[in-house]
Amino acid sequence: MKIALAQLNYHIGNFEANTNKIISMINKAKAEGADLIAFAELAVCGYPPRDFLEFSEFIDLCEESIAKIAEACSGIVCVIGAPTRNEQIEGKDLFNSAYVIEDGKVTSRVNKALLPNYDVFDEYRYFEPGLVFKCIEVKGVRIALTICEDLWNMKDNPLYLISPMDELIKEKPALMLNIAASPFSYVHDDDRVMVLSENCKKYDLPLLYVNQVGAQTEIIFDGGSFAFNKQGELLHQMKYFEEDFHVFEFDGQEIQGLEPVTYLPMSDIEQIHQGLLLGIKDYFHKSEFSKAVLGLSGGIDSAVVCALAAEALGPENVMAVLMPSKYSTDHSVSDAIDLVNNLGCQHYTIAIKDAADAFEGMLEPAFKGLPFNTTEENIQARCRAIVVMAFSNKFGYILLNTSNKSECAVGYGTLYGDMAGAISVLGDVYKTQVYQLAEHINRDREIIPRNSIVKPPSAELRPGQKDSDSLPDYDTLDALLYQYIELKKSSKEIIAQGFDEELVRKTLKMVNMAEFKRYQTAPILRVSPKAFGMGRRMPLVGKYLS
Amino acid sequence: MKIALAQLNYHIGNFEANTNKIISMINKAKAEGADLIAFAELAVCGYPPRDFLEFSEFIDLCEESIAKIAEACSGIVCVIGAPTRNEQIEGKDLFNSAYVIEDGKVTSRVNKALLPNYDVFDEYRYFEPGLVFKCIEVKGVRIALTICEDLWNMKDNPLYLISPMDELIKEKPALMLNIAASPFSYVHDDDRVMVLSENCKKYDLPLLYVNQVGAQTEIIFDGGSFAFNKQGELLHQMKYFEEDFHVFEFDGQEIQGLEPVTYLPMSDIEQIHQGLLLGIKDYFHKSEFSKAVLGLSGGIDSAVVCALAAEALGPENVMAVLMPSKYSTDHSVSDAIDLVNNLGCQHYTIAIKDAADAFEGMLEPAFKGLPFNTTEENIQARCRAIVVMAFSNKFGYILLNTSNKSECAVGYGTLYGDMAGAISVLGDVYKTQVYQLAEHINRDREIIPRNSIVKPPSAELRPGQKDSDSLPDYDTLDALLYQYIELKKSSKEIIAQGFDEELVRKTLKMVNMAEFKRYQTAPILRVSPKAFGMGRRMPLVGKYLS
Repeated sequence: MKIALAQLNYHIGNFEANTNKIISMINKAKAEGADLIAFAELAVCGYPPRDFLEFSEFIDLCEESIAKIAEACSGIVCVIGAPTRNEQIEGKDLFNSAYVIEDGKVTSRVNKALLPNYDVFDEYRYFEPGLVFKCIEVKGVRIALTICEDLWNMKDNPLYLISPMDELIKEKPALMLNIAASPFSYVHDDDRVMVLSENCKKYDLPLLYVNQVGAQTEIIFDGGSFAFNKQGELLHQMKYFEEDFHVFEFDGQEIQGLEPVTYLPMSDIEQIHQGLLLGIKDYFHKSEFSKAVLGLSGGIDSAVVCALAAEALGPENVMAVLMPSKYSTDHSVSDAIDLVNNLGCQHYTIAIKDAADAFEGMLEPAFKGLPFNTTEENIQARCRAIVVMAFSNKFGYILLNTSNKSECAVGYGTLYGDMAGAISVLGDVYKTQVYQLAEHINRDREIIPRNSIVKPPSAELRPGQKDSDSLPDYDTLDALLYQYIELKKSSKEIIAQGFDEELVRKTLKMVNMAEFKRYQTAPILRVSPKAFGMGRRMPLVGKYLS
Repeated sequence: MKIALAQLNYHIGNFEANTNKIISMINKAKAEGADLIAFAELAVCGYPPRDFLEFSEFIDLCEESIAKIAEACSGIVCVIGAPTRNEQIEGKDLFNSAYVIEDGKVTSRVNKALLPNYDVFDEYRYFEPGLVFKCIEVKGVRIALTICEDLWNMKDNPLYLISPMDELIKEKPALMLNIAASPFSYVHDDDRVMVLSENCKKYDLPLLYVNQVGAQTEIIFDGGSFAFNKQGELLHQMKYFEEDFHVFEFDGQEIQGLEPVTYLPMSDIEQIHQGLLLGIKDYFHKSEFSKAVLGLSGGIDSAVVCALAAEALGPENVMAVLMPSKYSTDHSVSDAIDLVNNLGCQHYTIAIKDAADAFEGMLEPAFKGLPFNTTEENIQARCRAIVVMAFSNKFGYILLNTSNKSECAVGYGTLYGDMAGAISVLGDVYKTQVYQLAEHINRDREIIPRNSIVKPPSAELRPGQKDSDSLPDYDTLDALLYQYIELKKSSKEIIAQGFDEELVRKTLKMVNMAEFKRYQTAPILRVSPKAFGMGRRMPLVGKYLS
């Protein structure tokens, strides 16, 4: 039998667009002689629909989509993810299901058993776990159909008490089919290949795996659907960060006509680059906006964001606003101009002196000659936010935030100032990674001026200011932050690794004290296994390490 | 036997303060001859500790606290909530437990079985559900000890497949003891009394129930611990919104020496008033700040926030900043001055004209004579934010946000402008409720000037502007929003109730389109069953009703 996998980019709640795209793939699969086509987890509504699931009308719309899709399923079987209602009185009202549709009718339904509820996942908020394990039959082939996490209970410290495949294997299936919505991080691709391969070896079955692709606000799906043989060898790897479609031949025993291939992972920095481009593209496209605005300082962070935006949206759709203050150096302006010239995007220069002076004058009676401090630094950063937001409001441009993860972590940024923006491009990319990304962007030609890369980082909010005045060097800082944020190590464990004790205590305290700032910042495109935002939920008013 | 309930205000992660408070209550209970003292759910670390629970060090600190508390437990049994480690390899790593401590030793441990994971709750993110049901024995009395939600599986559409009391009742306990962390909303008190009473009737057992009190950032706990007899009649009601302590006498059959009393609920508006005061107080106290700043417009919202802040923190700790623009009316300033005089708080007047003019001049070359629109309105609102944030930065005042729930819902506010602030006082209070709150604050004398209450609401961002230019009257708007936000009704259902169809579609679209603004606003003190913030998690880039 021929089995098609459709790796698509869905739009949450856009039932019309999703359904049309799904039906066109069903027709394509039929034209290519496929007997079965599989789509991703929660494909009809997009993943994650979050609290839209709590609206009964939203579930009705999912059911209407399934009915439309069923009409298109003549002469082909379709496996597709959608939320379904739990008909039992006890338990939560919904299941996270895979529909099996044949000849215009839903012939069976499989409910996800393992519901991830960590990091960015909230599935137990909505869904009752499935407790019935039964293979599906398609054209006489018995298939163990599971949904994403159902195959992931493989580690030394399993999160769940059961593994669905341990039950399904009892019915002697010939093939595993997993439909997924497995978000991207630059470490996740290796894990995914390993876990899927382990399943094949453990159950002595070939596997077809279909993932979503595309960004849903901050969460990016990288695709990378796969076919594995019984030995857990990779047979085919679908595209990363793009839609893709492939038809496989299965003879009842094994996937045919494909030789094992070596898994070729992209480098971490290339994955981050591709992920961020997709994140920017889909944020704009799915929000029906086309043009971006950002403040360009001449420093590395805004330069990298500008280059990514120009690549994702086209340079003609990027407006860079240079906003020098009296503390800005000449090279900041010239580095920024070099960049926009390299990219070919629009730019405007608006000095913020008049506004900053106006505020200082207005506040003078209240401040009565108190010395210049972070207050005045913040005023400058906030004047810049007013200028770029005015561009956003007047012309419908979307403001891109340019803060990096190191700054977000320690609170080195101004709330309602440089922390403003509709979407944060680099908020999950440490400063040291921003440099790598800049080099990667420059791999063929100099796009980001060398001077922006080599000069010492500075916020330029007071004369001669350098980041290193108040922060340790970024190599040390980022290594320390990684231990705390990604690995959740204690101060004791981090100090034991050789980091300076006072630095560790001071840094962790800064991270925890800055929760209130991160609470009010833009959603951050997630590229790491632990991004700030919905995947990291901290008390604001707490006393731990603060 | 004598059983003490300690209804305390914990501070998340402040182990030293929590442990000291707990030990002093143990000593007080001993002094009053109690045999048993019970504290709330997760008392040692405070509730909700959120992702602090993912740090192994945090769990170590919980265990160290339990060890210290155990040392104080000579001659008394203590029941207290804390996270504990799951020793099994399978399943999540933690339980949400109640320790039973006797003579310096932990003698047993009960694990919460029903883990709420809806609205503001995320317990399944951290905890494995308990599957073992066993009563505890204290001085020969068998007690069915449960944790909060364990008693809440009583409705027509139960969320869980099991009810712990159905298991525990088989061991014939003499008493139910429930330790809770049950957050406040103005409807929750009635539900709580009803559910607890139903449990007594169903299982024919008396019940002692101990809750937390105090605010943890946006979540407010109202206390209201209770004793009920076997018939489900209320015997004693502990204080709302305050710490409290009470010793009950139990003879092995029934709670003695107390006659049934009628439950006397506070009015909704009085609950909201008390809840917001506690929310403000604890935000400041637990963050170690004492002084607040806010922008005072002369309108009703900022007037109510100012009055609440003055009551919560003392008028000497409230700085009201009047920031008239060229569109502000004279009465706005005089109404604001009347209010600060009534309250006795400090105020400053800083006209924003110079800054607003500076921005308009700076932007003129880019805007090339495009007409005045919301861009210029937003510039004014953002200039005000810069001024109040400058006060915050220079003097260490905390900025109170003054937006109401109706505005937050429809996006009638300026991001980085009037939507700024460390904590939103009224973001869960509809405009019509703000008026009720103003009347309630004025119940004994006129604090909020009558003129602020009776004049038509206006943002005063252009000449003669009124809220009613762009919004329906608030009675209609709030009733409609309630159907959608609190009750999650579909547009079809809302229209069927008699609301104008076009108005419904336009309003729901406004609500969904404003998600991106709410994502970046201050945490909102939660007083309703459905507040914006952590309890309502919506996709930003979605297409549903938008």
